[in-house]
Amino acid sequence: TRSINLAVIPGDGIGQEVVAQGLKVLSAVLPQDVKLETKEYDFGARRYHATGETLTDADLDALKRHDAILLGAIGDPSVPSGVLERGFLLKLRFAFDHHVNLRPSKLLPGVASPLAGQPEIDFVVVREGTEGPYTGNGGTIRKGTPHEVATEVSVNTAFGVERVVRDAFARAQARPRKKLALVHKNNVLTFAGHLWTDVFNKVAEEFPEVTTEYMHVDAATIYLVTQPERFDVIVTDNLFGDIITDLAAAVSGGIGVAASGNINPGREFPSMFEPVHGSAPDIAGQGKADPTATILSVALLLRHLGHNAEAERIETAVAADLGERGDAPRSTEQVGDALAARVAG
Amino acid sequence: TRSINLAVIPGDGIGQEVVAQGLKVLSAVLPQDVKLETKEYDFGARRYHATGETLTDADLDALKRHDAILLGAIGDPSVPSGVLERGFLLKLRFAFDHHVNLRPSKLLPGVASPLAGQPEIDFVVVREGTEGPYTGNGGTIRKGTPHEVATEVSVNTAFGVERVVRDAFARAQARPRKKLALVHKNNVLTFAGHLWTDVFNKVAEEFPEVTTEYMHVDAATIYLVTQPERFDVIVTDNLFGDIITDLAAAVSGGIGVAASGNINPGREFPSMFEPVHGSAPDIAGQGKADPTATILSVALLLRHLGHNAEAERIETAVAADLGERGDAPRSTEQVGDALAARVAG
Ligand SMILES: CC(C)[C@H](C(=O)O)[C@@H](O)C(=O)O
Ligand SMILES: CC(C)[C@H](C(=O)O)[C@@H](O)C(=O)O
Repeated sequence: TRSINLAVIPGDGIGQEVVAQGLKVLSAVLPQDVKLETKEYDFGARRYHATGETLTDADLDALKRHDAILLGAIGDPSVPSGVLERGFLLKLRFAFDHHVNLRPSKLLPGVASPLAGQPEIDFVVVREGTEGPYTGNGGTIRKGTPHEVATEVSVNTAFGVERVVRDAFARAQARPRKKLALVHKNNVLTFAGHLWTDVFNKVAEEFPEVTTEYMHVDAATIYLVTQPERFDVIVTDNLFGDIITDLAAAVSGGIGVAASGNINPGREFPSMFEPVHGSAPDIAGQGKADPTATILSVALLLRHLGHNAEAERIETAVAADLGERGDAPRSTEQVGDALAARVAG
Repeated sequence: TRSINLAVIPGDGIGQEVVAQGLKVLSAVLPQDVKLETKEYDFGARRYHATGETLTDADLDALKRHDAILLGAIGDPSVPSGVLERGFLLKLRFAFDHHVNLRPSKLLPGVASPLAGQPEIDFVVVREGTEGPYTGNGGTIRKGTPHEVATEVSVNTAFGVERVVRDAFARAQARPRKKLALVHKNNVLTFAGHLWTDVFNKVAEEFPEVTTEYMHVDAATIYLVTQPERFDVIVTDNLFGDIITDLAAAVSGGIGVAASGNINPGREFPSMFEPVHGSAPDIAGQGKADPTATILSVALLLRHLGHNAEAERIETAVAADLGERGDAPRSTEQVGDALAARVAG
């Protein structure tokens, strides 16, 4: 498209600060003839406290009209755990059928990994985004009594698993190493695990060039710290994906640089791009937050909308910036300015 | 007790080799007047292929008569995924109500962590062992069709959560740092998460000296690689415990030294002790497997039976052995011999 109509959700805590830098870099990278329109939405803790609302049907209707969504972070200790997560973040992922949750991990030059030996890390996790233990199925009986029982139901469908597995195979096929690992726990979660494994093996037949492996999620955490270089593309369930992508972010430079896309590949709904990190209320408002993860999320957003050259410009700028930055701490704005200058240059 | 009547389950792959060394060290450490009786059971892949059985009611009756169980490893690629896990390992944990799954992580001197800077690591994970997503609840409809739906139900009870949380608080109270972290995902798995959190907060009132914190499982994986020294005791759900204890083992020296106990604290049933590692069929029969994890599991077994001095002797021997061993690779037997000599000495 030669125009981008973007919904911007700064959200809570450091969300405002990092999104401002994301937009700065986005404006700087876009060619003159691409018209950027943005509309800001006030979702998050403030709105919840003021109105009791997290995400209404009218909100969804409004968001639906955008080409994509850029999100900072949602969450604040003043709101009970789960309210904004289920009421906003997950509600949006489910409403807009964001079934491909894309989380690349790359250890960039000049970035320190907590792993000894600074291994080469360059893989992407394709996390399912609309099923598994995230559906909100389950319930509680006899709440607050010694006889309380609480259940959580992981729901997995052939339809849902196949589309995300297929997406992951296509991504693996397009990468030089062409490797895909399925991560699950099919020796214990046998119902869901066998569905995932059967679908994975069936789709694999259509991608003979892709080398596949299966790994239990517990073993995957070991490999992520002992042999992260072995991974190319990983496809996994919603909850396992949540867990291993935080670990992946940690080993590849930290959540300060971890980007993500909540993608609806068929574009029936706008996709949403956000840093993996949270709202970090402890450092909010101090200009300390690293906006790099948000800026890399902008690159994912651009690639999703077909602006591949601009996405690449941002990624190259981030790599150069991290490799050449000094030891002195930089403010949120300084990082944004440096990257805006690089992508414009 | 002045006698130990032990069930020994060598199992598959390297299980035989490591258990032999575990028994060697056990015999060496016990004082003359403690009578050790052992009975070997042939569970695992061989028995399954020969008879189709994994663990019968008669087997459970026989095992029940022992004071404790030492297990090597169960699992072989020739058996479909899930058959031995659900049919033997988990069946036994559930039948003998092993609700405290104890997994200590300590980075011993001379052991290399994959983490840069070799942080100080000394914590224990108390993993719930009889509930959560491990219950086998759930099912599949329309199997093998494009309309298949597979569910997994995580079952959590106030009874089950409270007893393991209480056990973890008692362990934290008994340690110098007196810190306990609850690891869950209560912002997404709100039914189970709120039960865990409420029970945790209620039991905390009885342990005013214990410092508590709550952490989402995804964040916990980050801290395990960036700040593992912050942990003292962790209590968590069955599946989260499975995942983070493999990661914990990896950062604290690898699964070659990770021990575990499947404990029934009330002693209605024998507890089972096993290395965290699996049967490693790729190196089985070559005398290459590290028996240290099994030998440390023997220490946990001895402590459970009240032989604290002997447990400590083993742990001290392992620490000394690892600290003083050379660079040359040692066989399974050499490690066992070295440790047997140290504990007897
Ligand atoms: C905040 C929470 C709902 C979310 C998740 O669990 O998906 C977050 O951890 C993430 O990874 O985006
Ligand atoms: C083999 C499997 C059933 C088991 C588990 O998931 O508990 C193992 O991974 C463990 O951690 O003991």
